[in-house]
Amino acid sequence: MGAKGLTIGVFDSGFGGLTVLRELLPLVAGSHCVYLGDTARLPYGSKSRETIVRYALSSARFLQQRGAQLLVVACNTAAALALDDLRVALPIPVVGVIEPGAEAAAAACREVGTVGEQALLTLRNMVLVVATQATVGSHAYTRAFAKLGLRATEKACPLLVPLVEEGWIGEEAPGKDPSAGNAARASVTAQVLRIYLGEALHDAPQSRALLLGCTHYPLLRPAIERTLAELGHPLRVIDSAQATARAVERVLSEQGIVRGGRAGVGEATCEFFATDSVRKFERLGPRFLGRPVGQVQLIDLGG
Amino acid sequence: MGAKGLTIGVFDSGFGGLTVLRELLPLVAGSHCVYLGDTARLPYGSKSRETIVRYALSSARFLQQRGAQLLVVACNTAAALALDDLRVALPIPVVGVIEPGAEAAAAACREVGTVGEQALLTLRNMVLVVATQATVGSHAYTRAFAKLGLRATEKACPLLVPLVEEGWIGEEAPGKDPSAGNAARASVTAQVLRIYLGEALHDAPQSRALLLGCTHYPLLRPAIERTLAELGHPLRVIDSAQATARAVERVLSEQGIVRGGRAGVGEATCEFFATDSVRKFERLGPRFLGRPVGQVQLIDLGG
Repeated sequence: MGAKGLTIGVFDSGFGGLTVLRELLPLVAGSHCVYLGDTARLPYGSKSRETIVRYALSSARFLQQRGAQLLVVACNTAAALALDDLRVALPIPVVGVIEPGAEAAAAACREVGTVGEQALLTLRNMVLVVATQATVGSHAYTRAFAKLGLRATEKACPLLVPLVEEGWIGEEAPGKDPSAGNAARASVTAQVLRIYLGEALHDAPQSRALLLGCTHYPLLRPAIERTLAELGHPLRVIDSAQATARAVERVLSEQGIVRGGRAGVGEATCEFFATDSVRKFERLGPRFLGRPVGQVQLIDLGG
Repeated sequence: MGAKGLTIGVFDSGFGGLTVLRELLPLVAGSHCVYLGDTARLPYGSKSRETIVRYALSSARFLQQRGAQLLVVACNTAAALALDDLRVALPIPVVGVIEPGAEAAAAACREVGTVGEQALLTLRNMVLVVATQATVGSHAYTRAFAKLGLRATEKACPLLVPLVEEGWIGEEAPGKDPSAGNAARASVTAQVLRIYLGEALHDAPQSRALLLGCTHYPLLRPAIERTLAELGHPLRVIDSAQATARAVERVLSEQGIVRGGRAGVGEATCEFFATDSVRKFERLGPRFLGRPVGQVQLIDLGG
C-alpha cells in the first residue's frame, strides 16, 4: 500500500467517524483510506480514561499495521482523552477532531460578532459544545478554546448516541412507516434535545455558536437547528468533520508526506474494518458516509 | 474461599445483574458472592453473537478463578446467546435468567387465565417479552416458552438501557432538581415506553403478561406499569430476578453442593469487580442492589 501511494488511517468507536472520512475523501484523491470502527467496544463516551486510552491504542496500532502513514482520530472521545498517548506511542502524525473543531467554531463566532463587540465577546461564554460524558469530563474543548482566547460551555448529552444508533433522528426514516410511529419517534428526539439544549442555554445564554462535539451528532443537525430556533437561540451549528479534513491536508503538506505514484490521480480508495457486526456497519455506515460502504471486514483486537 | 464456604459467581455486562444478586442474597446465607460487571465492554445487547460469547467466556473464567462453584449469568443477552458455550467450557453448574424468567411468566399466565380458557390460551400469543436487540434476535425466549407449551411475542427496546443508565427512569430522582427538568425527563421515558409497548401490543393484543427480559428493566417497572394502564392493557409485569434466585437454590440442592463451614450462618458476603469505571459502579450499583456496594475492584479482562 505504502509503495503504491499514501495510506491514511481513520478510526472511531463506531460509524460516526465516517462523517469525517466523507469530507476527507475529496481532499486526498489518489490515496488509500483504511477505516476502523471499534464497534465491539463502543460506546467509548461513557467509559473511563484508562479504558479509552487502551482501546484507542489497539485500534491505532491495527491501522498502522495496515500501512497508515497518518492517523485521523475521528472520534471526539478518543481525541479528547487519548491524543497525547497516541502521539507518544505512534511514529506517524496523528490528527484529532478537537482542535480543528474548536478552530471552526471560533471562526464562526468571529463572523457572528460585530467588530465593536469583539473585546467584550472574548470575556463571555461564547461556544456551546455538546458531547459525550467522557469528552465533557476531559474538558479537552475548554482547553482547546482557551488556546484560542475563547470560553466554552460543555454539555454532556449521553442519550444522543443511542438515539442516532436507533435511527430516531427526527427525520422521516426512509423505508419506514411514514405515519404516527415516526412522528412519535421524532418527538422523543425533539424532547430530549429540548431538555439538553434548554439546560445548556439556561447556563450559557450568551452562546454564539454550537459545536457538535461527537461524530454521531451531524445526523441530528436538522433536529438540533429546529430545537435551537424553538428555544429562541438560533445559534450557528458547527461540526468538526470539514475542519478536520482540512487539518489533515495541512499536516500532509507540512510534514512533506508525498502521495506516491498515484498521487492526485483518481478517487481515493477505501477499505473498511469493524470489530463487531459487519452487517450493522454495512447497514448504518451509508447514513454517515453518504454513499455505500461496500464490504466490511471483521477483525479481532483481542477485546 | 472454597475451603471456607460456598462461593457463587454472578456476572452481567453492567449493573443490572445486581437485581438478581439482591434476590439471591437472602437465599444463600453464609456463602460468598463474587459479582462481575463487564462495564468496559457494555452494552452486550447491541452486539453480535460471536462477540457476546467471547466476552461472556472471559468474564465467566475470571469468576471461576475467583473460586466460583456455581455461575449465575445475570444478563439476559449473555444467557440468550452464550449459555450453551458457557456450559461446555466450564466444569461448574451455570444458571441463566431466561428459563427461570419464562417459568415465572408462564405461572403468572396460568393464574390470569380461567380454567375454561386454558385450552384456547395456549394457542395464542400470551407473553410479551421486552428485551435488547441481541436477546430478541436470538429467540431464546421463544424457545424457552415453546418448551412450556406457550407462545411469546418478543419486542426489542434498544433505548431502555441508555435511559436507565442515564437515570431517566420516570421517577423523581433523589438529589436532583424536583421541578420541570425531572418531569420532562420522565415524560421522555414515558413516551419511549408508549412507542415500544404500543407497537408490541398492536402486534400481540392478546398478551396476558409482560416479562422484563433485561436486568436493567426492573428499574423502569413503575413507569412500565403506568404505560400499560394508559394503553388499556394492564398486564401483569414479571421480572426474572426472583425466579433466577430460586433456580440457583434448586441447582445447589440438586447437585449436592454443600455450603461448607459457614453454611447458613450469617449474611452472605459480597465482593464486586468491574472492568471499567469503578466510580460509576459505586454510584449506580446501589440503585440496583438496594443497598451500598462498598468498594469495587477494577480488573482487566484484556479487552
